Amino acid sequence: MVKKEIRVIGIDDGPFNKFMDNQVLVVGVVMRGGLYVDGVLSAKSKVDGNDATNKIIKMINKCKFRPQLQCIFLSGIAVAGFNIIDIKELNKKTKIPVIVVIRKNPDIENIKNTLIKINQKNKIKFIENAGKVMQINDIFVQLAGINLEKARKILKIVCTRSLIPEPLRLAHIIAAGIATGESKGRA
Amino acid sequence: MVKKEIRVIGIDDGPFNKFMDNQVLVVGVVMRGGLYVDGVLSAKSKVDGNDATNKIIKMINKCKFRPQLQCIFLSGIAVAGFNIIDIKELNKKTKIPVIVVIRKNPDIENIKNTLIKINQKNKIKFIENAGKVMQINDIFVQLAGINLEKARKILKIVCTRSLIPEPLRLAHIIAAGIATGESKGRA
Repeated sequence: MVKKEIRVIGIDDGPFNKFMDNQVLVVGVVMRGGLYVDGVLSAKSKVDGNDATNKIIKMINKCKFRPQLQCIFLSGIAVAGFNIIDIKELNKKTKIPVIVVIRKNPDIENIKNTLIKINQKNKIKFIENAGKVMQINDIFVQLAGINLEKARKILKIVCTRSLIPEPLRLAHIIAAGIATGESKGRA
Repeated sequence: MVKKEIRVIGIDDGPFNKFMDNQVLVVGVVMRGGLYVDGVLSAKSKVDGNDATNKIIKMINKCKFRPQLQCIFLSGIAVAGFNIIDIKELNKKTKIPVIVVIRKNPDIENIKNTLIKINQKNKIKFIENAGKVMQINDIFVQLAGINLEKARKILKIVCTRSLIPEPLRLAHIIAAGIATGESKGRA
């Protein structure tokens, strides 16, 4: 059984200009189920840097909602360009299950090739750590510290307004609205 | 009749350090009724400056939600310290009714005296423009371009989660979460 008021966090980054910006806004929205917003967290991550995993771990572990959080949603496994999140490490250091939500089945070989091209092949291990891409309804997920059946139950509760979890939809809207002055597009 | 899905915006500012910060983040949350978040807007206003009215007019008039917006909620009539909003001007330039929401009946004479003390008595006219403070249920309001009866009906729809309109509660949480890394307190 998953409670309707399960406390979760959805994390997404804002848009940025890769030629101008050094850091990117990362926003976390804490919700009870898919309806009530409890709080908003934020951090900054370096464009194409290596700090996303640690920044997100720190953002979550120091927040007052930490003891109640039952699930972390990510919108893909990277923020700020190729600042890739090691979801196994994120799960281990926060002790909270991680569900990565992706709209389209990603071309992982292509991403690995790009990382080699931009001289960041050390990040390929994070992509491997993210594990198998699985389909749930119309979205794709990668999981750490949670099985597919439990993930499916949580998604059923938090996807209140669209295909993707409401805390991710809001994190996207907020990060875009703050970074650019007006939110556009979708998570 | 006020529609349940009435499109409104709630505007609040983030916390700041008056000795360190020059500008303050101002956040607008666009909602349908008191449940669904449609978008987030943002701007910056000068601490104790004179730009809040124009910044907010611009933020609203250029946004894509503008044609649907039926009501602007403000949390008090100032942002960024004593950057006072002229709500009559805001109503006139946006052609949208304005409802200022205040938790406690403000001591207006005291505010006027403070403005004189800090050499900003030119702003007293904005306080006078904000009109009479009236009580609705457990909160206080000031109105521009809308009557008390209509304001009461809109408040009934948008105060879904607390005494204050949900878009104002969220604008407060977002502005605080972005400005400080974690939202604290209440609007």
